[in-house]
Amino acid sequence: MLDNRIITLTTDFGLKDPFVGLMKGVILGINPDVKLVNITHNIQRHNIFEASQVLTMSHNYFPPTTIHLVVVDPGVGGNRRPILVVTENYYYIGPDNGIFTPIYEKSQSHFFKVFHITATHYFRQMKGSTFHGRDIFSPVAAWLSKGIDSHKFGEQIFDFVKIPTPKPSLTNNSVSGEIISFDNFGNAISNITVDDLAGIGPVESTDKFKVTFGNQEIPFVKFYAEKEGQNLSAIINSFGHLELFVFQGSASEKFEIRMGDSITISAI
Amino acid sequence: MLDNRIITLTTDFGLKDPFVGLMKGVILGINPDVKLVNITHNIQRHNIFEASQVLTMSHNYFPPTTIHLVVVDPGVGGNRRPILVVTENYYYIGPDNGIFTPIYEKSQSHFFKVFHITATHYFRQMKGSTFHGRDIFSPVAAWLSKGIDSHKFGEQIFDFVKIPTPKPSLTNNSVSGEIISFDNFGNAISNITVDDLAGIGPVESTDKFKVTFGNQEIPFVKFYAEKEGQNLSAIINSFGHLELFVFQGSASEKFEIRMGDSITISAI
Amino acid sequence: MLDNRIITLTTDFGLKDPFVGLMKGVILGINPDVKLVNITHNIQRHNIFEASQVLTMSHNYFPPTTIHLVVVDPGVGGNRRPILVVTENYYYIGPDNGIFTPIYEKSQSHFFKVFHITATHYFRQMKGSTFHGRDIFSPVAAWLSKGIDSHKFGEQIFDFVKIPTPKPSLTNNSVSGEIISFDNFGNAISNITVDDLAGIGPVESTDKFKVTFGNQEIPFVKFYAEKEGQNLSAIINSFGHLELFVFQGSASEKFEIRMGDSITISAI
Repeated sequence: MLDNRIITLTTDFGLKDPFVGLMKGVILGINPDVKLVNITHNIQRHNIFEASQVLTMSHNYFPPTTIHLVVVDPGVGGNRRPILVVTENYYYIGPDNGIFTPIYEKSQSHFFKVFHITATHYFRQMKGSTFHGRDIFSPVAAWLSKGIDSHKFGEQIFDFVKIPTPKPSLTNNSVSGEIISFDNFGNAISNITVDDLAGIGPVESTDKFKVTFGNQEIPFVKFYAEKEGQNLSAIINSFGHLELFVFQGSASEKFEIRMGDSITISAI
Repeated sequence: MLDNRIITLTTDFGLKDPFVGLMKGVILGINPDVKLVNITHNIQRHNIFEASQVLTMSHNYFPPTTIHLVVVDPGVGGNRRPILVVTENYYYIGPDNGIFTPIYEKSQSHFFKVFHITATHYFRQMKGSTFHGRDIFSPVAAWLSKGIDSHKFGEQIFDFVKIPTPKPSLTNNSVSGEIISFDNFGNAISNITVDDLAGIGPVESTDKFKVTFGNQEIPFVKFYAEKEGQNLSAIINSFGHLELFVFQGSASEKFEIRMGDSITISAI
Repeated sequence: MLDNRIITLTTDFGLKDPFVGLMKGVILGINPDVKLVNITHNIQRHNIFEASQVLTMSHNYFPPTTIHLVVVDPGVGGNRRPILVVTENYYYIGPDNGIFTPIYEKSQSHFFKVFHITATHYFRQMKGSTFHGRDIFSPVAAWLSKGIDSHKFGEQIFDFVKIPTPKPSLTNNSVSGEIISFDNFGNAISNITVDDLAGIGPVESTDKFKVTFGNQEIPFVKFYAEKEGQNLSAIINSFGHLELFVFQGSASEKFEIRMGDSITISAI
């Protein structure tokens, strides 16, 4: 039994309804010693891709053995499977609808296992068929946090669901990608990362690169306050992604940036 | 003294102001070992009925001895009484304005006691008269969680306030009720429950029932994903209530459903 | 090493993005025993003055040794310094941009020290230069909560940044001040406090005072419910500040009250 186990919660439930509180009540009823941390409950309703991106940004900032519970589940009550994903450092619990695709992709060359959760004796008795977050995922996470072995929850599976995730395309001296998310400040985040840039130049030297967005070259800076004024600028953000921003403003609103818009960075 | 006591918080304070944080500071200053769980802080301002419904949905998902703190308190500073309600499994703390009406009704044939909180030595010293959540309810909840006996907080009372709560009407083969709340997804929840239906037919067999809303018969299904498309459908939700929904849409917006709208379910 | 240390969090990050969750993950990875309490994450973006007011309202409701982490940081990544402020009862961690001005002012005659945080071995390794909340402030707070001495984080400084904070002006029988904030209910809060009034009359006797706002005398009451109806009224709120309100309404909307509007209270 592991000490100080953390369970994180990521959902599209919002904070008006009591749904998140109830999940915590169920978990604490099984394991009163677990620590609960909200990642967000404001994923856009039923947006599996957004949930997968938020999880990718977040999971590594938690200590090993953390259990990441993700409930964005448009198919709840249908025949999609509840699953438990085990990697070298973490556990992930949620529906088998592709939300864990980036976890599978990043673990490609490493160890990971996916279990179909079928052991109903770890579930809450269900009144209806519509709240698996409370009746399946929460109690399973709580029992897992108490030290129950992963394979006790069901059989290992290999045909788990993946969703398409856009990848940047690399040439000798450039990387082309697209906008994959927006933060609350209106910054537009691309799928191009520092790792992609490593092959084409030293990322510390922003003046060795040229960023092109919408057929225009835009300034590439090292920190937000470096580029005051209301122009669109680019930066490597604190998650290692190439991002578009306006100093103290909303880039997405001011420049009407959309999901999927193209962005290119080239060595000069 | 009980281990691992939980205090839940339900208020209409919202999350912009620091009010909820301060209540937690006061509680942790008295009992650093208590666990705090938000149910919601987005009850509509001063909506006692909504608070009572949210509490009814939520309280039973927490382990026994949980203390439910509910602060929706339009009469704060006037002559309404602060109260402590003790039932077989839980404690409830808040203003005597009717928020605990469903608790009284569900405990009818069981044990429950209501105490008027008057023991000022358990209160914080007050600068003004307007924040009992911080100065009375929070410290009383914290002292209670440390094992102080309920009767130490004041005298038992019997004239506690109740508010009207709409009840469904039953005939031999039908139940008529009304819409009593909406969740964040726009689902419209009625006051008809599985218990009401038990007398008229087997609720597992949705095809044995007919649901009528606004003079129209609407489909009655077992899970949300069963009814794709944009029609209005009915379901027994995960709290055992008959609910109107639109698959991946907002029933309340699309069909302009209002609080108090009638709904009937009959055996075929 | 102190038991049950609390870290509070105050930011302008909002609750949609996972930023707050990540800070908590980083903290719990270093000190799994710390308790985390949100004060608010809905400070208006980059509003240093608002953050300083919220902190002033909140800090004293937490038990001694609490660490208050405040990240409203428009200059992140530039040359503003990360600082640790130590007072008799509390610790404060955040950027040196003036957010802690009221703490310095209230501690004037008392002990307080400000340290420039430079000990990079307590930082997370940084991918970008834009998220000091996660990479500097959170780990420093976590190490501090584990008992590391304040002076280990960097040199004491004396040229810390202050922002202007409007002060009320006192005469023999009146105090003039201004509106400095609004709460979520639309109440308008002034910078006049009970301490300012102590010199001119007994604040318990509201009928010994006259409140003037916008050239009109307005009623001065003891509790909200005392003044039903839709008129503008004044009250000493639960933080000891003179406040304008409308019973069960929004004073700021209904009377178009603005930041900086003048208000005067006089002995009759």
